[in-house]
Amino acid sequence: MDIQETLTRQLPLYARVLLQKGICLQKDQILVINAPVEASRFATLLTEEAYKAGAAQVVFNWYCNGTTRLRYEYETQDKFESVPHWRSEFNLDYYRKGAAFLSLISADPYAMKGIDRKKIMAWQKAFHQAVKEYSDGMMASKTNWLVAAVPSTVWARLLYPELPEQEGMDRLWIQLLDAARCLGEDPLADWDKHLAELKQRREWLTAQQFTALEYENGLGTHLTVGLPDRHIWQGGAESTARGFLFNANIPTEEVYSAPQADRVDGVVCSTRPLVYSGNLIENFRLTFKNGKVVEATAKKGEEVLKDLLKMDEGACRLGEVALIPYHSPISLMDTVFYETLLDENASCHLALGDAYPTCVEKGAEMDEEELKKAGLNDSMIHVDFMVGSPDLTITGIRKDGTKVSVFVNGDWA
Amino acid sequence: MDIQETLTRQLPLYARVLLQKGICLQKDQILVINAPVEASRFATLLTEEAYKAGAAQVVFNWYCNGTTRLRYEYETQDKFESVPHWRSEFNLDYYRKGAAFLSLISADPYAMKGIDRKKIMAWQKAFHQAVKEYSDGMMASKTNWLVAAVPSTVWARLLYPELPEQEGMDRLWIQLLDAARCLGEDPLADWDKHLAELKQRREWLTAQQFTALEYENGLGTHLTVGLPDRHIWQGGAESTARGFLFNANIPTEEVYSAPQADRVDGVVCSTRPLVYSGNLIENFRLTFKNGKVVEATAKKGEEVLKDLLKMDEGACRLGEVALIPYHSPISLMDTVFYETLLDENASCHLALGDAYPTCVEKGAEMDEEELKKAGLNDSMIHVDFMVGSPDLTITGIRKDGTKVSVFVNGDWA
Repeated sequence: MDIQETLTRQLPLYARVLLQKGICLQKDQILVINAPVEASRFATLLTEEAYKAGAAQVVFNWYCNGTTRLRYEYETQDKFESVPHWRSEFNLDYYRKGAAFLSLISADPYAMKGIDRKKIMAWQKAFHQAVKEYSDGMMASKTNWLVAAVPSTVWARLLYPELPEQEGMDRLWIQLLDAARCLGEDPLADWDKHLAELKQRREWLTAQQFTALEYENGLGTHLTVGLPDRHIWQGGAESTARGFLFNANIPTEEVYSAPQADRVDGVVCSTRPLVYSGNLIENFRLTFKNGKVVEATAKKGEEVLKDLLKMDEGACRLGEVALIPYHSPISLMDTVFYETLLDENASCHLALGDAYPTCVEKGAEMDEEELKKAGLNDSMIHVDFMVGSPDLTITGIRKDGTKVSVFVNGDWA
Repeated sequence: MDIQETLTRQLPLYARVLLQKGICLQKDQILVINAPVEASRFATLLTEEAYKAGAAQVVFNWYCNGTTRLRYEYETQDKFESVPHWRSEFNLDYYRKGAAFLSLISADPYAMKGIDRKKIMAWQKAFHQAVKEYSDGMMASKTNWLVAAVPSTVWARLLYPELPEQEGMDRLWIQLLDAARCLGEDPLADWDKHLAELKQRREWLTAQQFTALEYENGLGTHLTVGLPDRHIWQGGAESTARGFLFNANIPTEEVYSAPQADRVDGVVCSTRPLVYSGNLIENFRLTFKNGKVVEATAKKGEEVLKDLLKMDEGACRLGEVALIPYHSPISLMDTVFYETLLDENASCHLALGDAYPTCVEKGAEMDEEELKKAGLNDSMIHVDFMVGSPDLTITGIRKDGTKVSVFVNGDWA
């Protein structure tokens, strides 16, 4: 089958999976799309599908990595310390109108290489502050949102440096469609089946109510992750405040919950590279005591990692624990994508930073103080990092001390 | 010379011409760029040149013709009757901060074909109303601004339907660079020479203080265009309120002034197609009486033309008179570009709608009432249309009734 024919046939199906199985756009809902300018063709196709599905409006926030990098290179520090009012109003206004937010992303691990990290951190803080109501709403699933991948020329060159530009882009599209379970004849049906399986896993885990999970592997990981009382495992569709189901990531292979912020102890080693704000961090090792990172080393990007841990109070504690079998479809591709959206779905992972309120009972209705009391971490960041390996074992500890094997040799026990 | 090598060498020069001879970006000024998503590579190059020239910030308003058309196809009328606050604030806020505004455009004569014109007109009115302070400021040259062309796949296909996409785009780049006098070794020096010539023409015309111009050609044009007292001819750099020179269009081949809104009489025939809000109007004929269009016919797009004339009170009167020799570099290319920015610079033209306040003495400081009293037209629209032909004669009438030949056989007398 010719690659162009495949793309012509499958891309509209990918758009429908994003809209129907991912963000689950509602009739008469506003859809806000964050899209790289390079992806305007697919974004146009996605827009048409969204209108056909009944979108009241489709609004764009286009972004361009090239001009954004230049901004960081040339603009002075003060420009990053506040957000223009029109920019924060864009997010807040559509959020208050009940819009759904869809972000199309591409990998670019060197996008911010060499840029003064003070600028990057200042902008992240300022932006988080300026749109806090929106960010908190996303974390608490108050509206439906989605992050999904599209190719870019930089990404294609990174993965297939030997191919001409257009061939590399096409090849990357095929891999992304494959990872998103969108290469089959009926991706919508495949997704229904996949989501039902994730639902079964998550319900089993929630029913266990483990008080902690113990991680072990030959790389040196020896970590205990405490889980709060009445925690909930998510994965395979969750409900917004207004009661419609959605999946915040495509692809998604994970079931996930929230660690107890002050009950994480031991050592964990990363197993895939991490790209954080346009910088690469590789082969790192974190030591936790009472939930807090007390030591951090990395073969590459150690300074970036240390800055990340200092972003705020909660940046050095865990906010997510997610389980994915080592033999998941994405890990079987044997590709490091240098993009967390893909790489996190190829491997068990943890996240530094903010926890999802929906991971404890009635969490979406709790305020910050109540969430903290329930054991959940609070931060402006939420950064996943991968810890899955072919020899990983995870053991669940029940309240009565009995142990249940959850993962053996990297896969579900 | 290989076409890619030519583009690699000349595109940075084009960017510098836009910044130094077009918008004349000032050190520490904010630059707002309206750009089609398709032109992100050139926009990135332009951004780097702008920062190197001392821009304080470069801010983007990206737009996409594909998704914009879908918006008009699917969204209901009410969505076009008001402008989101963040969107108007974007223009107003940067305008009040003294930003320069640069728009990159491409031709797309069928962009809005078949779209209900009520939606298009409603949005134009709403947008004009929402950013009136900004629009009035642009017309009165209160800050520096520029419109310049970039290729698009749609435009390349329109002009070179026989060429593969990338070849068509490259060919169009070469034509646009040629039209913008940016194919030579030292385009900046070429522009200095060109602007000096335009300045000479404009100073001669202003000194004449013609009370009217008479147009005649074999197509049936027989038109008298009255000129107000103390009118000024512009062209080849004008000054902003803060005193720096700029050129609002690249290419620019014209010298132009403002007609007296109630002293235009006779018949004028169009000589090139006109694209207005994504619709094509061809071979049209306007009859004026006391400055007002009293009859309008067109072989193609007559309804669009009639809607245009009804946009507001001033839409059926002239706001600009511009002189360009028939044998200008752009007309010698013998290409209809279907984009006014190019086509207007290949031909003498007139504009329906708003007049430039800078075309009468002290006009930039006058309020609406004073401008009206000075004889200048006021409208939310400003639509150029082409009237130049190889047999056009234009005769200037002095106050004492003596006649001076200005154009003979389409060129300067």
